[in-house]
Amino acid sequence: MAHERGFPPEEFAARTARAQALMAAHGVDALIVCTEPEVRYFTGFHTPFWQSPTRPWFTVVPVTGKPVAVIPGIGAPSMSATWIDDIRTWSSPRPDDDGVTLLTDTVRELVGPNATVGLPMGPETHVRMPLADLDRVRSSLGDFVDVTDIIRSLRMVKTDREIEKHRRICSIVSDAFDRLPDVVSTGMTERQAFQAFRAEILAQGADDVPYLVGATGPGGIDDIIRQPSDRVITDGDLLIFDTGSTIDGYFSDFDRNFAFTHADQSAKDAYRAVWEATEAGFEACKPGATTSDVFRAMNEVLKANGSLGNDVGRMGHGLGMQVTEWPSHTATDETPIEANMVLTLEPGLVWAPGKAMVHEENIVVGANGSEWLSRRADPELPII
Amino acid sequence: MAHERGFPPEEFAARTARAQALMAAHGVDALIVCTEPEVRYFTGFHTPFWQSPTRPWFTVVPVTGKPVAVIPGIGAPSMSATWIDDIRTWSSPRPDDDGVTLLTDTVRELVGPNATVGLPMGPETHVRMPLADLDRVRSSLGDFVDVTDIIRSLRMVKTDREIEKHRRICSIVSDAFDRLPDVVSTGMTERQAFQAFRAEILAQGADDVPYLVGATGPGGIDDIIRQPSDRVITDGDLLIFDTGSTIDGYFSDFDRNFAFTHADQSAKDAYRAVWEATEAGFEACKPGATTSDVFRAMNEVLKANGSLGNDVGRMGHGLGMQVTEWPSHTATDETPIEANMVLTLEPGLVWAPGKAMVHEENIVVGANGSEWLSRRADPELPII
Repeated sequence: MAHERGFPPEEFAARTARAQALMAAHGVDALIVCTEPEVRYFTGFHTPFWQSPTRPWFTVVPVTGKPVAVIPGIGAPSMSATWIDDIRTWSSPRPDDDGVTLLTDTVRELVGPNATVGLPMGPETHVRMPLADLDRVRSSLGDFVDVTDIIRSLRMVKTDREIEKHRRICSIVSDAFDRLPDVVSTGMTERQAFQAFRAEILAQGADDVPYLVGATGPGGIDDIIRQPSDRVITDGDLLIFDTGSTIDGYFSDFDRNFAFTHADQSAKDAYRAVWEATEAGFEACKPGATTSDVFRAMNEVLKANGSLGNDVGRMGHGLGMQVTEWPSHTATDETPIEANMVLTLEPGLVWAPGKAMVHEENIVVGANGSEWLSRRADPELPII
Repeated sequence: MAHERGFPPEEFAARTARAQALMAAHGVDALIVCTEPEVRYFTGFHTPFWQSPTRPWFTVVPVTGKPVAVIPGIGAPSMSATWIDDIRTWSSPRPDDDGVTLLTDTVRELVGPNATVGLPMGPETHVRMPLADLDRVRSSLGDFVDVTDIIRSLRMVKTDREIEKHRRICSIVSDAFDRLPDVVSTGMTERQAFQAFRAEILAQGADDVPYLVGATGPGGIDDIIRQPSDRVITDGDLLIFDTGSTIDGYFSDFDRNFAFTHADQSAKDAYRAVWEATEAGFEACKPGATTSDVFRAMNEVLKANGSLGNDVGRMGHGLGMQVTEWPSHTATDETPIEANMVLTLEPGLVWAPGKAMVHEENIVVGANGSEWLSRRADPELPII
C-alpha cells in the first residue's frame, strides 16, 4: 500500500503562514529554531545526522517570506531537496565561528538591526548550540523574546497529513503487539525479548524504534523505563513493553502489559483499573475540556481502585515528531483540548510497594469526540 | 558468547577521580552536566528516556566525593541501580520549577555559596534544559566557567572496557556489511534496502541502529547523508551505507561503498583513492602526531588523485557514546593523538560534479600504532 512520504510544499507554506500570523500578533520580527523537530517542522529537513553533536543547524523564520536555512555545508544537498530556497552554509566544524556570524548576519539582513527576535526558551525546549556561542549570538542580536508558546500552539494541533502518519505507525505497532505472544516466551532473557520485539516492529513496517523500554518481574514490575537485563522470563512474570516507534519521522507511543502463564487477582485488578482509567480519559478528551479535566477523569478511577500514587508526574502527553510533546495531563496543566491534537492517555498506579502498572493508548481529538489511533488494548490482562 | 554489560563501579570511580584531578588543577569546585552522554559517563544511567524532551536531568560532580544525581522522580529506580548513592528527585514535569531550585540548592549544599561551578559551554556541547530555566540557574549560582576541555579530555581517551564495547559493535557491523550482498539487490527500492540492512545489523546482535544514512545513484552519489527514497536500485548504481550502530551505548561509525553489476573506471579510481587515503591516515595516527597530521596525510592522497574537494568539513573524528565526538581531523584542529583514542578515518572526495565518494573506518590508537576496529574494507570497489 502506497503512503505519502514527507509533505508537499503547501504543508510547510501553511505551517509558516500560521507561525507568521502568531508572530505578527506578538510583535516578533523573526524567530530562530535549532533543534531537530523545530527545523524539520518548518523545512521538512529529515536526517539522522542530528545524532552527531558536532554541528549546529539553524532555521530563521522571518515574519514575511519563506524560512531561511543556515546550516553546515554537509547538509546543503539534503536541504536543497526540501521546499526551502534560501540555504546559507558554512564549512563546519569551525570552532572559532561555527555559524555564529552567518546566523546573526542573516537575521540582520532579513529583519534589520533592531528587530524583535524570538527563540523557544520555555518548557520542553532547549537550545542546541554551545552556550558560549549562544552568548555571542545574544550579545550581537540582543536578548531574545521567548516564542515557546507560538511553537507549542502550532505543533500541538496536527494537520490531517500529520495525523495520517500517526495513524499508520500506531497501526504498525498494534500489529506488532498482536504478534508479541508469538515472538516472546518464557525462557527468553529480557534482552532477547527486546531484540525479538524490536525486529517484529521493524518487520511490520516501522522506519525505526527510537524508544523501547520495558521490564519483567515476578507478579509485578517496579521500574517501567528500564533497559533489558539478562533476567530470564519465567511463569508468573508480568511484562511491560512501551515503545515510541516512527514512520516518516512521526511517533507512536503506547504500551502493553502481559502476564506469562498466570497472574494474581491483584495484578488483574490493577490492569483493569488502568484500562478503565483510559476509558475515562478518552471520554473526557474533547474540545472544551482541558488536560487537567482529562487528568482528573483518569485519576478518579485510579483513586477509586486503591492507587498508592505514581512517579510518572503526569498521565499522558502530546505526541508528534517527538515521543513526547506538549501538553501534559496533570492536575495543573489546564491546556484547552482542541480538535486535531494527537495525545497519549497514560494512567498509572502503584498497587503494592514496588509494583507499578501503567497503560497507554494514543488518540486523536475530533470535533465531536476522539478516535483511538492505537488498537484498543484488551480490557483484561492478557495471559501468554 | 557472554560480554560484559555496563561497567563495574570502579570504572565510574576512576572516571570521577580523573575529572576531580582536572577540576582541582583548574580551580573548579563542582561541575554540572545535563546531556545523555555526560550524565551516563559519570553515573552509568542508560535509558532511551532522553528521547522525551519534557524533563531535564542533572548530575553534579563535586571536587571531592561521589557524583550526585538531580533527576525527575520517574528515573529514581533506574538511577538507584547505578553506583550513585545520592539521588535527589522532584516530581516532573513541573514547569514553574523543573529542577531549578533542587539543582541550585544541591550545588550550594555540596560546595558552598561562592564556589566556582563549571558547565560544558564549548564546541560540540549544548545545555539540555530550557534557556529560561538556565538563566535562572545562572542568576542564582553566578556565571559558570567552561569545563568543555575537562569533559573533552576525559571522554576522548577511552578505557579498556570502553574499547572492548567498540570492538564488539564494530565486529557486529562488519559481519552485517559482509552479508550485504546477500540482503540487498537490484530491483529493491532504497527504502527496502535500508530496511533489510537495518534488520541484518540487529540480527547480527547490535542493540540499536540510531544512525543509518545512505544513497544510491547511477554511477555516483551526490549526497551521502540522505534518507532513503522509493528509487529502485538498478544495474550500474553505486550504493553507500554509513551506520552508527550501538552495543551497550557505544557506537560504531563506518561506511561501505558498493557497485551493482558494473562500475566506471572513474568510480573505481575514486574508491581506490579514498581507500589509500585511509591507509595513509592509519599510518599517521599515532601518539606524537596530531589530528591535523592525520588530516594532511589523507588530504595529500586525495589531492594526488584529483579531488575536487568535499563538503564534510573534516576527515574523521572521535567515536564513543555518541556517533561523533571530539576531536576532528581538520587542517587546524591540532589535537594531540593519544593512546586509547577511538577514532574514525573518513576521507572523502568529489571526483566529478555531483559525484562524491567517502570511505570510513574505525580504529583505536595504541602506544606503537593503531588497530582496525572495523574489518578493513576491500581495496577495490566491491561489485554486487
